[in-house]
Amino acid sequence: MNRPTPLSGFPEFLPGARAAELAVLDSLRATFELHGFCSIETRSAEPLDQLLRKGETSQEVYLLRRLQAATDDLGAPAGSDLGLHFDLTVPLARYVLEHSGALHFPLRRYQIQRCWRGERPQEGRYREFTQADIDIVGHDELSKDADVEVTEVMAEALSRLPLPPVTLLVNNRKLIQGFYLGIGATDPAAVIRTIDKLTKVGPDAVRRTLTAEAGLDDAQVDRCLALAAISAPDPSFAQQVLALGVSHRLLDEGLSELVRAVESAMHLRSERFSLVADLSIARGLDYYTGTVFEGRMATHGDLSICAGGRYDALATDGRSTYPGVGISLGVTRILAPLIARGVVGADRSVPSCVLVAVATDDHRSGSREVARALRARGIPTEVAPDAVRFGKQIRHADRRGIPYVWFPATAGTTHQVKDIRSGDQVDADPDHWRPPHDDLHPRVTYREEPT
Amino acid sequence: MNRPTPLSGFPEFLPGARAAELAVLDSLRATFELHGFCSIETRSAEPLDQLLRKGETSQEVYLLRRLQAATDDLGAPAGSDLGLHFDLTVPLARYVLEHSGALHFPLRRYQIQRCWRGERPQEGRYREFTQADIDIVGHDELSKDADVEVTEVMAEALSRLPLPPVTLLVNNRKLIQGFYLGIGATDPAAVIRTIDKLTKVGPDAVRRTLTAEAGLDDAQVDRCLALAAISAPDPSFAQQVLALGVSHRLLDEGLSELVRAVESAMHLRSERFSLVADLSIARGLDYYTGTVFEGRMATHGDLSICAGGRYDALATDGRSTYPGVGISLGVTRILAPLIARGVVGADRSVPSCVLVAVATDDHRSGSREVARALRARGIPTEVAPDAVRFGKQIRHADRRGIPYVWFPATAGTTHQVKDIRSGDQVDADPDHWRPPHDDLHPRVTYREEPT
Repeated sequence: MNRPTPLSGFPEFLPGARAAELAVLDSLRATFELHGFCSIETRSAEPLDQLLRKGETSQEVYLLRRLQAATDDLGAPAGSDLGLHFDLTVPLARYVLEHSGALHFPLRRYQIQRCWRGERPQEGRYREFTQADIDIVGHDELSKDADVEVTEVMAEALSRLPLPPVTLLVNNRKLIQGFYLGIGATDPAAVIRTIDKLTKVGPDAVRRTLTAEAGLDDAQVDRCLALAAISAPDPSFAQQVLALGVSHRLLDEGLSELVRAVESAMHLRSERFSLVADLSIARGLDYYTGTVFEGRMATHGDLSICAGGRYDALATDGRSTYPGVGISLGVTRILAPLIARGVVGADRSVPSCVLVAVATDDHRSGSREVARALRARGIPTEVAPDAVRFGKQIRHADRRGIPYVWFPATAGTTHQVKDIRSGDQVDADPDHWRPPHDDLHPRVTYREEPT
Repeated sequence: MNRPTPLSGFPEFLPGARAAELAVLDSLRATFELHGFCSIETRSAEPLDQLLRKGETSQEVYLLRRLQAATDDLGAPAGSDLGLHFDLTVPLARYVLEHSGALHFPLRRYQIQRCWRGERPQEGRYREFTQADIDIVGHDELSKDADVEVTEVMAEALSRLPLPPVTLLVNNRKLIQGFYLGIGATDPAAVIRTIDKLTKVGPDAVRRTLTAEAGLDDAQVDRCLALAAISAPDPSFAQQVLALGVSHRLLDEGLSELVRAVESAMHLRSERFSLVADLSIARGLDYYTGTVFEGRMATHGDLSICAGGRYDALATDGRSTYPGVGISLGVTRILAPLIARGVVGADRSVPSCVLVAVATDDHRSGSREVARALRARGIPTEVAPDAVRFGKQIRHADRRGIPYVWFPATAGTTHQVKDIRSGDQVDADPDHWRPPHDDLHPRVTYREEPT
């Protein structure tokens, strides 16, 4: 085999970077579980017609074909064809409907899984990537407290990550929809889709589209842009909205929901996490009906690193409707560029906290015994693969970032353990020695980039 | 959407079963990491020509096509097409070659990931399934100690699972190859492939194939079958092999390796795990060159639940060769049938150890404070979604298997916590109360089936 080359859009990590990713995933999972969210995993494939229901993603889906079937039958994709899921929301909706009789509602679930999109790879866009989603799904009804709870859980999860600071932008679809109806827009959904592109295309392009496609006049466009300019880290945004002098029942409802969401999350602010009511956030997808979220990371510019919101009909089977609220975090989108730039890594590439040296091949069984004693007390340990001179064995540990090398007792010597970072070497007992807690497992390293 | 139906071959678990799977995966990972094995994850897709190199799996590969590409271009699959990996060994070989300059050898890695095969679903055969692999890979050379180590790590991992007992059968390819050469077989690989099917097709069919396709006479076939009948939980098998009176350099070498492997693993035997030298085990795949493993579980009959061995050339790029030894555990193959039969499950379907009751909507913020205090000390906690009567809130906990319900202090009452299994209710302080350790997280339940 010649040396293989990477596949564009399919990022893959070296062991040290994977250790950092694993620490991030463990931390997310720990927070989700602390809040009682259960794990589910769905199959990777869904029927193609289900994946294409929302329409927007038809070019991005990876189709699955058995190799034999692909050779036998080259017809156009049929409805029974399978595709890989491109997010975790479509599979959740299907899972909820399929298993509704066996699930307890409200269902609070997290799901950390890979997704696939056949789009052109570029910064922040991958063909295979890991998402971490939390959702609360009700049966026919779901309290507005669920919106607050999802905000709190994701905020706590983000604030615990040893990563660059995150801002969670929050808005409410009822608020903006009511506002657009209040100024006389006849197709508020078209306005929402256009405003959603504001950051990307700028106000002039938005003005042109709103005029040409949503049929708004200049005064109406002015008010839409004024609304989108409102942003505040506290409930003061409400006064600014009211000052625009628009009134509509839906606007009032959305305003009060957003005030409540922002108020309820005030205590979550930290150095690593801030929450801002930002009225330009629309989230183009049609299924959002209330609170909407979009997360940004200092290092990632305008790229959204998490997104979500309230959907009053995540799924429906005719008899029952399943409302939900959730946020989806782009783990690969966050980590892959930071890892590639060396901003994020781990302090070692293996789980081992201790390397047990082997003096000669005859001493290997003694070294294995020491390793067993340390492991029995939860200390990750490996035995040196070769009985070469100790200097080489210490280098073996050093290259992997293993902090301790253990020299087993021999006739006339005691057990000793060396911290190879400081050079300190002390007598130690395999049945009692314990490293400082921080040394036990690999830790994520985060080096701030020069700005 | 109508109620969706399951996809055959793509198993999916309810939250309780997923909790059991997660506990199993956590346990495997903990053992692998205790032994210093690092985690890697490879991309799910590999170039089709790489996947088809071994030839045997061509009908089972799932081809990936971007939906747009599939419609535009219906030609036969080209070499540049991508397929989903069907195991974790082919991707490991590619990963080692691609990243060899950045990896430290010997590389000790574990990999827990999904794989896909387009085969006809049946008991033990899935189209999407999770594998847990460990391998040690050297650069140009790899000590025989690696075989012993891989045996020890997987044995320890298996012995810790709260699952039915496992037997790990071990053999050595040099031993059997040398034996077949020693009796005058000209194509020992053909004999190995035939003997590998012994359990499935029985001795008569094996005799016919060995005569017709490998050109052996009846006396030669007798000796092959006599070798395959040898099985022992200790090194006594060596005497039985020697008693067959065959001699060959490779046979001697394999015999001494197998004796060493069996001797080195003697201390690992437990109620849950036994190791047996079984000379009928061949593992058809051509790349095994020394030790071979095959695992069986009492509940799974002849179905192999783990398999692996020594391959002297996992990968090669012309300049360097990467020998390895590894075992692959079929997590889905083990769990899916046990879960479907109700043999394996979890004692609760959510991570929550405590449900904090809510007396009235005005008391919700107090309940949230209690939950925060408990979570701050690592106790998974959720707040009741609705301020309905306490009996209903207790049922909410009961249905999910949450063991404790917390009643926050109100004017005139103290904080109290109720163990809903025993009915015991006691005063408690949210900043100090702690459940018994065993109640903190969901546990796997294993109910033995009547035999």
